[in-house]
Amino acid sequence: MSVAFAIAARDGAARRGRLTTAHGTVETPAFMPVGTAAAVKAMRPEDVAQAGFAMILANTYHLMLRPGAERVASLGGLHRFMNWPGPILTDSGGFQVLSLAKLRQISEDGVVFQSHLDGSRHELSPERAIEIQRLLGADITMVLDECTAFPATGNEARQSMERSMRWAERCKHAFRDSGGYGLFGINQGGVHADLRLASAKALTDIGFDGYAIGGLAVGEGQAAMFAVLDATVPTLPDDKPHYLMGVGKPDDLLGAVIRGVDLFDCVVPTRSGRTAQAFTRFGTVNLRNARHLDDKRPLDQGCDCPACTLYSRAYLHHLARAGEILASMLLTHHNLRYYARLMEQMRAAIEAGRLAELGNHLTRDWARGDIEPR
Amino acid sequence: MSVAFAIAARDGAARRGRLTTAHGTVETPAFMPVGTAAAVKAMRPEDVAQAGFAMILANTYHLMLRPGAERVASLGGLHRFMNWPGPILTDSGGFQVLSLAKLRQISEDGVVFQSHLDGSRHELSPERAIEIQRLLGADITMVLDECTAFPATGNEARQSMERSMRWAERCKHAFRDSGGYGLFGINQGGVHADLRLASAKALTDIGFDGYAIGGLAVGEGQAAMFAVLDATVPTLPDDKPHYLMGVGKPDDLLGAVIRGVDLFDCVVPTRSGRTAQAFTRFGTVNLRNARHLDDKRPLDQGCDCPACTLYSRAYLHHLARAGEILASMLLTHHNLRYYARLMEQMRAAIEAGRLAELGNHLTRDWARGDIEPR
Repeated sequence: MSVAFAIAARDGAARRGRLTTAHGTVETPAFMPVGTAAAVKAMRPEDVAQAGFAMILANTYHLMLRPGAERVASLGGLHRFMNWPGPILTDSGGFQVLSLAKLRQISEDGVVFQSHLDGSRHELSPERAIEIQRLLGADITMVLDECTAFPATGNEARQSMERSMRWAERCKHAFRDSGGYGLFGINQGGVHADLRLASAKALTDIGFDGYAIGGLAVGEGQAAMFAVLDATVPTLPDDKPHYLMGVGKPDDLLGAVIRGVDLFDCVVPTRSGRTAQAFTRFGTVNLRNARHLDDKRPLDQGCDCPACTLYSRAYLHHLARAGEILASMLLTHHNLRYYARLMEQMRAAIEAGRLAELGNHLTRDWARGDIEPR
Repeated sequence: MSVAFAIAARDGAARRGRLTTAHGTVETPAFMPVGTAAAVKAMRPEDVAQAGFAMILANTYHLMLRPGAERVASLGGLHRFMNWPGPILTDSGGFQVLSLAKLRQISEDGVVFQSHLDGSRHELSPERAIEIQRLLGADITMVLDECTAFPATGNEARQSMERSMRWAERCKHAFRDSGGYGLFGINQGGVHADLRLASAKALTDIGFDGYAIGGLAVGEGQAAMFAVLDATVPTLPDDKPHYLMGVGKPDDLLGAVIRGVDLFDCVVPTRSGRTAQAFTRFGTVNLRNARHLDDKRPLDQGCDCPACTLYSRAYLHHLARAGEILASMLLTHHNLRYYARLMEQMRAAIEAGRLAELGNHLTRDWARGDIEPR
């Protein structure tokens, strides 16, 4: 069999599951830190694991350009290359080709594009996307999709979704079954419920080990995103993991877990860490703000990360203002630990049938905001 | 008493000593990583300690400008601020005022300058330099000196040195004796042996807990620097630590230890780590070089640092080319570990009376260079 997914508990639409892969198990709902170029930015992999993450995401687009998929394979695969022994999910490159590459030409065959690094010409087809992810050694491979632009007319969204479904079928055909390795389809259709439904049916007919929801968090806003989830998640196979791609902030994760999503990835915690934005129990904190100059308090009182247990806000502020790499290291670590703990809390709450209660607590605290010391 | 220094073994002019301070002991010869702005760049302090360092250096100039010495004091002092429980030596700011500040005006009183950060006006006198270092909580305080420009005429070097000696006396007067805290004088005189001798006599007459050699590694070259050490170190009090400021590369350290130097600081290992230059048994290695693209070997076969034990050269090359912060983190860690091990080797060799033999081994290996895998 490919990858296994077992649901141990439910709370409303939310699910408490376990995903078993070739490189280990992932307790869900789970967040995957993004290791774009075979590194979670400003983090050592052992610290990513210790922060509480089982699986990370890496990017096919970046890795095919540098250092190259064949090179990673010859160096022993991505797990060994980047010293991450746990599960890895790789995206297919479709999203990055559209957002980063130059001079894209999209046809039924696939995408021809120029590297944003050196202008070199590359091709990405459904078959090549699968091959690259196999070379990388991904535990979870994603189908190549065409991420529908936002906004798009209903007709544009339909044509784009239908092409993605044809590509999904080619990916399924190209994927070689292997124990512990799985292939996920990607639901598209923009904000159009009928297209999302048609996409879900097409993907289910092909049959995948998991079902992602793509094309969200591209500017539609949280309410529209939740509306898409409300319309889409119930149409996905219930016994397979549901993965919301590229999402999101803490309240996005809460709302999506409530709606039955099991997996997430997003650059927000790591990118925010490098710009001195911290997630805390009482909302986001900008550590560059001068109000922290003399603040002896920890960043987040209840947090067990190194930034919060070893340093004051005054010091973190100083590092951020001085442009020290240590600021990026500590605040990335904190944000990831915050995300890991948030997922731990949600998993425990689902088991206890108290997710709504947790959601009320979290939301109330986020809304309180970061209050000055007296 | 202030700080204690005991010499346990000698090998020629080299000394195997132990410096005891308020925050712990330092086995010498020792190298101090530079924590300019209250952080060793790209390193967590616990990793600096684990790499094998007992004492670090921090910069009065940077810290008086940001976050401010009074602020650090109110936050509990530098040790607590930056989470470094071990000894800290602070330089006096003299060197940075000359190299970084704008619109300097030097008088007998001291230096008036504009911050390189925001143009604000600041004064640094011998008395204020001592006060700042006391506020920071430095275990070892350095006198304020005027770092003589290079090149300088004999007359310029003499006038500069003599002013530094008058400032040294004022610093001694301003320094408050306290158990475990010491004050070091700084020998000046450029490359002029007679001035170095006069400076040593002046400092010895004042009386310090240690004697630094300043104004070197400013462009004079290694041969001229070693000539200054040959002329100067024997004129310093034998029973006090000898500290060569701002030096240097591994072969500089070896040559200086052979000449009786006990302490060093330099940005070279940390700065090199951020530009993908690594120090190894077989000399320096530029990890940006394309020859590492497919190299599965560790950076330095015998090294026990995370960069060498967990990753290939191919991966480190990839990180460096991708501009990943993790490249700076891993290569800084490696370089510091290389420096710590070099000092460990020299300490052991002095104890065994085999420093010359170690020097021959090290020099032969450095000269071999980093050879390609077959």
